[in-house]
Amino acid sequence: MVQEIDFWFTMGSTYTYLSVGRLREAARAAGVLVNWRPIRNVGSLTGATQPPFLDGTAKMRYMWRDIERRALAYGLPINPPIPYLGGDRFKANRIALLGMSEGWGPAYVEAAYRQWFENRIPNGDPENIRVALLQAGLHQADVERVISVADGDELHKGLDQSTETARETGVFGSPSFVVGSEIFWGDDHLEDAISWAVAGQLRPR
Amino acid sequence: MVQEIDFWFTMGSTYTYLSVGRLREAARAAGVLVNWRPIRNVGSLTGATQPPFLDGTAKMRYMWRDIERRALAYGLPINPPIPYLGGDRFKANRIALLGMSEGWGPAYVEAAYRQWFENRIPNGDPENIRVALLQAGLHQADVERVISVADGDELHKGLDQSTETARETGVFGSPSFVVGSEIFWGDDHLEDAISWAVAGQLRPR
Repeated sequence: MVQEIDFWFTMGSTYTYLSVGRLREAARAAGVLVNWRPIRNVGSLTGATQPPFLDGTAKMRYMWRDIERRALAYGLPINPPIPYLGGDRFKANRIALLGMSEGWGPAYVEAAYRQWFENRIPNGDPENIRVALLQAGLHQADVERVISVADGDELHKGLDQSTETARETGVFGSPSFVVGSEIFWGDDHLEDAISWAVAGQLRPR
Repeated sequence: MVQEIDFWFTMGSTYTYLSVGRLREAARAAGVLVNWRPIRNVGSLTGATQPPFLDGTAKMRYMWRDIERRALAYGLPINPPIPYLGGDRFKANRIALLGMSEGWGPAYVEAAYRQWFENRIPNGDPENIRVALLQAGLHQADVERVISVADGDELHKGLDQSTETARETGVFGSPSFVVGSEIFWGDDHLEDAISWAVAGQLRPR
């Protein structure tokens, strides 16, 4: 039986770049099926009214340095300084949701994150959306169609529903990996989630 | 040249148990010197007025499950349900600071955390303090001496100073590992910190 991981994420999340950049290859290598499940944002899960990182804090400085160190270790491109919270992440997540039902979702999310971390154009920025959709293999006409439905009721409702399912599951941050009833939070725990899906236990250290 | 890691921690922290339980052996195996440096509490670093985990939240449930899974994987004892925020963690940290200058600090911190996670007696509880000091090898008379100076000005000032140094270094959570100018936050990053101390880079995944 193929083991499955629900990958819950919001495209406003910085750390999620590290998982998006290596998830498809890691899952393929382990023979695990991944369901990519976008949500609105982290605040919709936790009730928090502030973003997880605030300008001028030690935690914000640490986050960028930590991501840079790990991107280098993973061989993922990164071009600091990276902008934070610049684009319409809600729209980016609605487009990702549509993409998951049409098959181009993971490629769109990967391309969008590369735009953000290589070219400093944040997820949900109009240019990021167009370029990422083209890079995901959509034709120009399809790009226009996607952009024209991205603000529609159906995707709004779909993303709200997805977010509510995440919340009921116990997800409270991005990225999160869910294997059965076990939640693994943070890019650090990607390998643990895969190990749990394959072997029912954490990997040895 | 022996490489050094500053291990910043507060004994109010739950996740710190996972690091305390394996730090001495991991450092010994890697040939790294660890400076154990207690601080007052996380709020003194960040200005936060609430504890990092709140009753009834998904994050709190996740924290306990995550620690339980990882304790089992590390071979560390754990006996849920574990109490949270029950003892006087400030006093526990002052005693740890004294212990670091007298040589019994790491053994006290390890014994105290075992009291908390095996016997459900939180760090800083009077019984936890007595038992942990005895288990750390102090004689009864020394235990009485330590308890009698634990609330004195000198240790209060020392712990405040230590906390201020941590804050100036950019530490904002417990456990944190500092190697030169690099900060690694969280028990997840213990291996990364050791790898950085030994080889100047993150371990491969």
